[in-house]
Amino acid sequence: MSELKGNLLVAQSGGPTSVINASLAGVVEEAGKHVCIEEIYGGLNGIYGILKEDLIDFNEETNKTISGLKNAPAAALGTCRYKIDFKKNPQRAQTDINRLFEIFEAHNIRYFFYIGGNDSQDTSAKIHGLAVQRGYEMRVIGVPKTIDNDLPHTDHTPGYGSVIKYNAVTTLEIATDVSSMATDDGSCCIIEVMGRSAGWIAAGTALAKQYPDDPPHIILIPEIPFNQFTFLNRVREVVDKKGYCIVVVGEGLKDENGDEIGADKDNLDAFGHPVLSGAAEKLKDIVQDNLKLKTRTVKLGYAQRAAAHIASQTDIDEAYACGQKAVKSAVDGNSGFMVKLVRRSSEPYEWTTDLHPLIEVANVEHFVPREWMTEDGYLPNEKFMRYARPLVKGEPTVPFVHGIPRYAELAKIRVHKKLDTYNI
Amino acid sequence: MSELKGNLLVAQSGGPTSVINASLAGVVEEAGKHVCIEEIYGGLNGIYGILKEDLIDFNEETNKTISGLKNAPAAALGTCRYKIDFKKNPQRAQTDINRLFEIFEAHNIRYFFYIGGNDSQDTSAKIHGLAVQRGYEMRVIGVPKTIDNDLPHTDHTPGYGSVIKYNAVTTLEIATDVSSMATDDGSCCIIEVMGRSAGWIAAGTALAKQYPDDPPHIILIPEIPFNQFTFLNRVREVVDKKGYCIVVVGEGLKDENGDEIGADKDNLDAFGHPVLSGAAEKLKDIVQDNLKLKTRTVKLGYAQRAAAHIASQTDIDEAYACGQKAVKSAVDGNSGFMVKLVRRSSEPYEWTTDLHPLIEVANVEHFVPREWMTEDGYLPNEKFMRYARPLVKGEPTVPFVHGIPRYAELAKIRVHKKLDTYNI
Repeated sequence: MSELKGNLLVAQSGGPTSVINASLAGVVEEAGKHVCIEEIYGGLNGIYGILKEDLIDFNEETNKTISGLKNAPAAALGTCRYKIDFKKNPQRAQTDINRLFEIFEAHNIRYFFYIGGNDSQDTSAKIHGLAVQRGYEMRVIGVPKTIDNDLPHTDHTPGYGSVIKYNAVTTLEIATDVSSMATDDGSCCIIEVMGRSAGWIAAGTALAKQYPDDPPHIILIPEIPFNQFTFLNRVREVVDKKGYCIVVVGEGLKDENGDEIGADKDNLDAFGHPVLSGAAEKLKDIVQDNLKLKTRTVKLGYAQRAAAHIASQTDIDEAYACGQKAVKSAVDGNSGFMVKLVRRSSEPYEWTTDLHPLIEVANVEHFVPREWMTEDGYLPNEKFMRYARPLVKGEPTVPFVHGIPRYAELAKIRVHKKLDTYNI
Repeated sequence: MSELKGNLLVAQSGGPTSVINASLAGVVEEAGKHVCIEEIYGGLNGIYGILKEDLIDFNEETNKTISGLKNAPAAALGTCRYKIDFKKNPQRAQTDINRLFEIFEAHNIRYFFYIGGNDSQDTSAKIHGLAVQRGYEMRVIGVPKTIDNDLPHTDHTPGYGSVIKYNAVTTLEIATDVSSMATDDGSCCIIEVMGRSAGWIAAGTALAKQYPDDPPHIILIPEIPFNQFTFLNRVREVVDKKGYCIVVVGEGLKDENGDEIGADKDNLDAFGHPVLSGAAEKLKDIVQDNLKLKTRTVKLGYAQRAAAHIASQTDIDEAYACGQKAVKSAVDGNSGFMVKLVRRSSEPYEWTTDLHPLIEVANVEHFVPREWMTEDGYLPNEKFMRYARPLVKGEPTVPFVHGIPRYAELAKIRVHKKLDTYNI
């Protein structure tokens, strides 16, 4: 290992989580401890803003703000869904890459940390590979982040513990409400949660259960094809027994042909994924039409990934540690890795951080194992519960002012631009 | 005043709130202090369960459970939407009333407290009137409860402070998320909240604002007819300036003909009100079709009225005091009143409880005054803010166990039935 002197650039990408800023705080606070790191810059709106040379100077931020990031939702630096895509548009991608390295050189960036999910780890892998190829000495480490928990090789992703905590608490509270309204006519409530094609988030709402018969009664995950007949039978069974039925559905639930039941195929996001938004409404129609049962839906949407007021302290601590680990590893001479969380024990819960080659992480999705669900596929079993339970523990101190949280915000003092304007 | 010896019956009705159980705790704990009150019974599922003689004995509950009710969401006794309706079905109503008085007599009920909203106060008013008419000595006091804040004569209703706290926090968190995702293409997020034909809940999300330009940028309340043209102009204006726009819409928003834009007229509830569920989706179509703007919706549904984990301590205290006041007033000889909250001062916030004749409360709706909204009608003004600010203050201690709240639940030990079965 050789000491590398120079500046640090950190940025955030993809959908925010409740703890993506805790990782940012980990990077910035750890960086302050190493003399080889001279300036600490943040890129606004991920790669998108870096290409436009929109950088901010963390030395202009107060310690209080940096520390407050541990409890602040959303991406404090701003985020983006912009992708450097060599397959779709090789010419554009090459121009973007050239521009990125002009930026790195102009600002003497020698440490680059990208906090993000699947697509962002892919971007980090490319940047690392090209830095090596171009002979530009820079250490690149990806910091994992996604509520979806679909990154491979890490035990789980920072952001996951908080989203399932919020969703489990919300499911518990909704179920208590619906149960208290249940008289003889019966009712059904369908709660739609995020997670794209992975069922991790939906499965996590099982933490609302204190006893096996407690709600949620049915959890539909995208990994297990939806069967209308057995689903309706199960709803009927639960309503006959309890007077009401709470169903949780992952937005990416698929039918037996592999088509998403709630997909809006006319509406694609920047990565070409269809926007998923209608699974609960679709199921409501199915239940009402077939069982003549009063059915309501809840769609928590962005609320679930931004609910810092009920984040998991374990998740915050892990996200922060991932940011620290990235900086320590880079200073130690590593590049081309993603930080991962390693579980040493579930009971008592013990964990640590380690590194994994970026190239093995990028664009690989990690799903809920079939053997972590009950035989009929309608609930997670004890294997999943043992995995998920420790991740939601601990309550953070929320900065309330007159009853409303006042979350830390960056002052965002810009770094002086050195290059010409770049059009995206 | 004459001392009246006998038993107490308390029940809950209508949609739950985060603090309806705090009022119940206030009734039960206060009742324990008066020797004239012999047994303390709870009616399960409101009038519906009382007609079936489904009563529980509060003396069988632990003090810990009763105290825990202050922080427990939903209706601990269960609730109903059953109405004794002399207009629609006078014969049925008469039979129900006769049965109710048989129950009261069989169990020597001399104190009757009904915790509920508009329709429930109407029920209490009828029971009081008929008790007087029949010469059955019983003291009847209504305890106000509704997230909708649409009861007249009371400064606000218990339940309102907590729902606007949760909704304001959620709006703040969602807005921070959407804002951090905003790059040059712009986006819109529409959050649908409850409130039926009153805009109190929607207006309350303005508490998310620290500065005037902060989100939410547009709040659509049912009291002000929706104008598509000026609405779209406003969305465009905000997106041009900020890169994103946060819209909050009350579920009962009406067009210029007075028709609810999100009403599902094929789907009526037990009181004949149409189920409202589509305002945000409708607005999303309008925004996407006209402005070609990426638009997402959030529908918090039951989550907002059950979110005890972020209730307002002020609201809990007031709800509890309303329950206490009901018992004290009845012991003092009053009957035929609803407890109301009286504001003595907004800054500093000072309040007390008083009584109001039930007959003046029942079936009267209370709306957001036009002069509490800005001239263009898209945001509440300082008059509203001064009213709403004190109601959300204070954070309760939530009973977390391993990261998930464990709310108090009644053991519900049944009172021995003395009458024949009654079919509803």
